[in-house]
Amino acid sequence: MNFLEEKIITDGKIFNENILKVDGFLNHQIDMDIMRQIACEIKRRFKGVHVDKILTIEASGIAIAVTLANMYDVPVVFAKKSATVNSTDDKYVSEAYSFTRKTMNKVFVSKPYLHEGEDILIVDDFIADGQAANSLVEIVKQAGANIVGIGVAIEKGQQNGGKMLREKGFHVESIAIIDTMNVETQTVFFRRQ
Amino acid sequence: MNFLEEKIITDGKIFNENILKVDGFLNHQIDMDIMRQIACEIKRRFKGVHVDKILTIEASGIAIAVTLANMYDVPVVFAKKSATVNSTDDKYVSEAYSFTRKTMNKVFVSKPYLHEGEDILIVDDFIADGQAANSLVEIVKQAGANIVGIGVAIEKGQQNGGKMLREKGFHVESIAIIDTMNVETQTVFFRRQ
Repeated sequence: MNFLEEKIITDGKIFNENILKVDGFLNHQIDMDIMRQIACEIKRRFKGVHVDKILTIEASGIAIAVTLANMYDVPVVFAKKSATVNSTDDKYVSEAYSFTRKTMNKVFVSKPYLHEGEDILIVDDFIADGQAANSLVEIVKQAGANIVGIGVAIEKGQQNGGKMLREKGFHVESIAIIDTMNVETQTVFFRRQ
Repeated sequence: MNFLEEKIITDGKIFNENILKVDGFLNHQIDMDIMRQIACEIKRRFKGVHVDKILTIEASGIAIAVTLANMYDVPVVFAKKSATVNSTDDKYVSEAYSFTRKTMNKVFVSKPYLHEGEDILIVDDFIADGQAANSLVEIVKQAGANIVGIGVAIEKGQQNGGKMLREKGFHVESIAIIDTMNVETQTVFFRRQ
């Protein structure tokens, strides 16, 4: 087991077969030691890959993006969510369905912050159904930039987001991939990588 | 002029006497060089102050909080916003009026992440009317923790948030304090510190 799988075992809480709560160290309170290790490990897995910019989505992706960008010394761009924003001349806009809120969100990045030909590394804390990552992929395509990889802390392997993105040909790296969870025994089974 | 005042002059955009857009380097795209300098300068201004935890509010406060927490090597807690959350046994809840969205937001932190007696440094990207900072102050008080300071990148001195918090006795440090802005000449006047 790697450091993140160990942390999930000790500090994560399983609410049901689909919901893992890691807000004690990842997305409400942030354990900076774990955060630095996540960033180091993402950087290691994309060794040799050129990165111009790191793209994430508000809010909880920002912590990983900033820690990683500090190592690469490149800018972060975080996409914003809005229920109402319209496609305009000055924004790239896509959509993501939120399963937690059961609403369709618009996701946008202002045009001056993504350029044609730039090498973009997409990062986030979680990948589940892949809605958020997909909306970022869509935005990068609109900008004519290149997606050099997608790096996340935790992939919920029971859902299809990671699989779908890999099938599309993207280089996806997840530090921990959950295969199954058992709420009664509070056990998590990780995919061997 | 310090580094942030210079950056505001060169890259900020004044939309009217009250709206300064700095999303090219602070709260949409993030210039990591500026971000590190902001964190270093906040740390310098609170030299000798003991900090157990850094508290901010999603989303744009997270970047500064994480960069600073990386230097202090303490955890970050970011308060979450919700239109609907209710006061419960497991959350500290306060309120903040959003002038941009013209709505009252609930702001909350789960109880396990703030403890009685902890020394909390509150940080954010902006302070304007002080609604966000005030909601964090309220939450820290509910937890019985101590506010050792409030550090922000940019204070809008035309609004009263910073003044009000200083009058309440808090140690507030703002790297750049805007006194007035002129949209026609695109000039910004900073308060001498």
